[in-house]
Amino acid sequence: MAMANKGTQQREWGQRAWAHFSAVRRRSPLVQCITNFVSMDFMANTLLSAGASPAMIHSSDEIPEFTPKAHALLVNAGTLTADWLPGMKLAAQVARNSGKPWVLDPVAAGASSFRLKACSELLELSPTVVRGNASEILALSNGCVDSKSKGVDSIHGSADAIEAAKSLAQSSGTVVAVSGAVDIVTDGERVLCVQNGVPMLQKITASGCAVTALIAAFVSVDPLHVLEATASAFSVFGTASEAGSETARGPASLRTNLIDSLHSLDEDTVVSRVSIHSL
Amino acid sequence: MAMANKGTQQREWGQRAWAHFSAVRRRSPLVQCITNFVSMDFMANTLLSAGASPAMIHSSDEIPEFTPKAHALLVNAGTLTADWLPGMKLAAQVARNSGKPWVLDPVAAGASSFRLKACSELLELSPTVVRGNASEILALSNGCVDSKSKGVDSIHGSADAIEAAKSLAQSSGTVVAVSGAVDIVTDGERVLCVQNGVPMLQKITASGCAVTALIAAFVSVDPLHVLEATASAFSVFGTASEAGSETARGPASLRTNLIDSLHSLDEDTVVSRVSIHSL
Amino acid sequence: MAMANKGTQQREWGQRAWAHFSAVRRRSPLVQCITNFVSMDFMANTLLSAGASPAMIHSSDEIPEFTPKAHALLVNAGTLTADWLPGMKLAAQVARNSGKPWVLDPVAAGASSFRLKACSELLELSPTVVRGNASEILALSNGCVDSKSKGVDSIHGSADAIEAAKSLAQSSGTVVAVSGAVDIVTDGERVLCVQNGVPMLQKITASGCAVTALIAAFVSVDPLHVLEATASAFSVFGTASEAGSETARGPASLRTNLIDSLHSLDEDTVVSRVSIHSL
Repeated sequence: MAMANKGTQQREWGQRAWAHFSAVRRRSPLVQCITNFVSMDFMANTLLSAGASPAMIHSSDEIPEFTPKAHALLVNAGTLTADWLPGMKLAAQVARNSGKPWVLDPVAAGASSFRLKACSELLELSPTVVRGNASEILALSNGCVDSKSKGVDSIHGSADAIEAAKSLAQSSGTVVAVSGAVDIVTDGERVLCVQNGVPMLQKITASGCAVTALIAAFVSVDPLHVLEATASAFSVFGTASEAGSETARGPASLRTNLIDSLHSLDEDTVVSRVSIHSL
Repeated sequence: MAMANKGTQQREWGQRAWAHFSAVRRRSPLVQCITNFVSMDFMANTLLSAGASPAMIHSSDEIPEFTPKAHALLVNAGTLTADWLPGMKLAAQVARNSGKPWVLDPVAAGASSFRLKACSELLELSPTVVRGNASEILALSNGCVDSKSKGVDSIHGSADAIEAAKSLAQSSGTVVAVSGAVDIVTDGERVLCVQNGVPMLQKITASGCAVTALIAAFVSVDPLHVLEATASAFSVFGTASEAGSETARGPASLRTNLIDSLHSLDEDTVVSRVSIHSL
Repeated sequence: MAMANKGTQQREWGQRAWAHFSAVRRRSPLVQCITNFVSMDFMANTLLSAGASPAMIHSSDEIPEFTPKAHALLVNAGTLTADWLPGMKLAAQVARNSGKPWVLDPVAAGASSFRLKACSELLELSPTVVRGNASEILALSNGCVDSKSKGVDSIHGSADAIEAAKSLAQSSGTVVAVSGAVDIVTDGERVLCVQNGVPMLQKITASGCAVTALIAAFVSVDPLHVLEATASAFSVFGTASEAGSETARGPASLRTNLIDSLHSLDEDTVVSRVSIHSL
């Protein structure tokens, strides 16, 4: 009975993920991305292949006019310099004032005090979701620069960051998502675990950036269920990587296949593969 | 007879397109690209695979010395910020003063008044060709911000923009190219239609940016026939995407195949596939 | 006997290259890259697939804190503007003061006097290795802007630059690497030639940038043998392109295959294919 129950719940999660994904394809939400230089191409192609409409626009001169037209905003701190920060903050404020979801990706938050301060200031602007790897979420939660930082690559597993993620979600009022071998999503009370994706994703630069943009697209079509929509985005991206890995011969062909799969994934594949459960 | 005539004309367009393409491969024109961050990699690879020599150089400190050595200039407004605009204008002026063709890509011209003003100011510097999607050309022609703007994605078909394109060509003295399911090229009097390419190109970020760079390369080898060279570039790019789509499984493999095809396209394929006609 | 001797030496070079490559995979050095916008994605994926850990961080606000944590630094002058130069110089100084190797890629050094001056100033900060194509090394060595510059593409063969490279190595005290059909590496006295790689690499944008980042990773694991580690990086990258070219249908699939091959190359392939010899 318990197993049957578990099977039924899995199927419900799969159907929910498919509903989110279908809504993105149908509505094609406009997602404004203020992101690092490394990720722009891959992120835009991820959004396009998933059915969303990306706009890489970061100038403060047009944010007040453009951001209200977007359905969601993504802010990514990857190749941060001081001159990009005002635009990021302005866009976050405009998104919030327009009632649009915005998602923060605090890339390498623990790599320096400059970066930690910038990410903390962005966090104070009430993102709808924060998505990082375990090291980034720990740095944000502890407010400490990581002396052993490996830059953008995590030196912790996502399980190490569950308590930090819950604490950060409670103190900031945001949904916190920790990517890793198992992805964790929490609103401070509930905790969802997503077990989709393949280890080789870690060998594709900006794969974390890309999934965060997908989270923005998914949350924009179901803003009242941010926790679930975030888990769906993780799961659909992971499912695409699983489907893509079947014929991949390394990280570059996996990236190609992942984008191709995002474009063609069907209901059966999504519903049967999605692996989400409550902790 | 009419059909035979049409067949003969098609063959002539095919041979003209092949002549343009062959000249690009033979002369390897140096194309300076001042373009957005999203498109740089794909644009450079498009030019290289087509036989041209790209140079992504945008600093005002070297434009006066470098731009005269280039055979063509591409200016793309994609990730525009105020600090990039002076370099774009300077390069356009230097190109014009050096007698080199320059091509403007007014990305998302209607997305904000800042962007529309910048693109209009660039248009006043007499580009040889302006290439946009229908929404961008309509925004430039009407001088209006688009309240329903979807960022870089067009919400209009190219046919909607024929009159606007003709009017813009007449008032600005430039060749205007509108990409879409059917590509339109006009000098204000003649109108050429290009029917090559596959719908999935819209799912590849910066495919419009890439074809505009190719237009710059093609125009540089036949500067007295800008209208025809622009149509040839559209057609060769579209032909490469058609050849590439045969084995593509989605947008990412299509992009890979498109670049591969640009590198290997032969005369028979180009001449037989090119579909250009006068309206 | 001479041939057997040559075979034995080749095998030793192959085993040395494999030892370098294995050390990169095992230690996963953190390589900070301050590089041009075109190359960021390909460079990061090259480093990841080879087992290194890339960090694209260029802000002066965090270099003093971050650069000492990196195992090597790459500075690439590709899309240079005046505002990036202070960060490049600061990072080079911090790397030097921290005893970390740093590698300079003087992209298009001869394209303008602004660029030549910037690259010369960076050269004065004692890079561990300078890697350029023949035209770039000749420009740096002669201190002359190239009137026939083709931007980033070399108009000279690497053999034309051997004497210039030796002279530059002697005057600057750095190892000088010249990429081309045959790659040349010299410390001013010894000269190594590397004969791996395929001609189509020239049709992949930023392939020179990517191999320079790989040099930084390789040198970081064997800082006392900079000459040899540089030759190993050239050879492993070239070997990956050779393996990848077997199923490539053009420049884009070659790039995909190259990254895939870097990730999966095994000892037998590396040892048997590496072609390095002393001049």
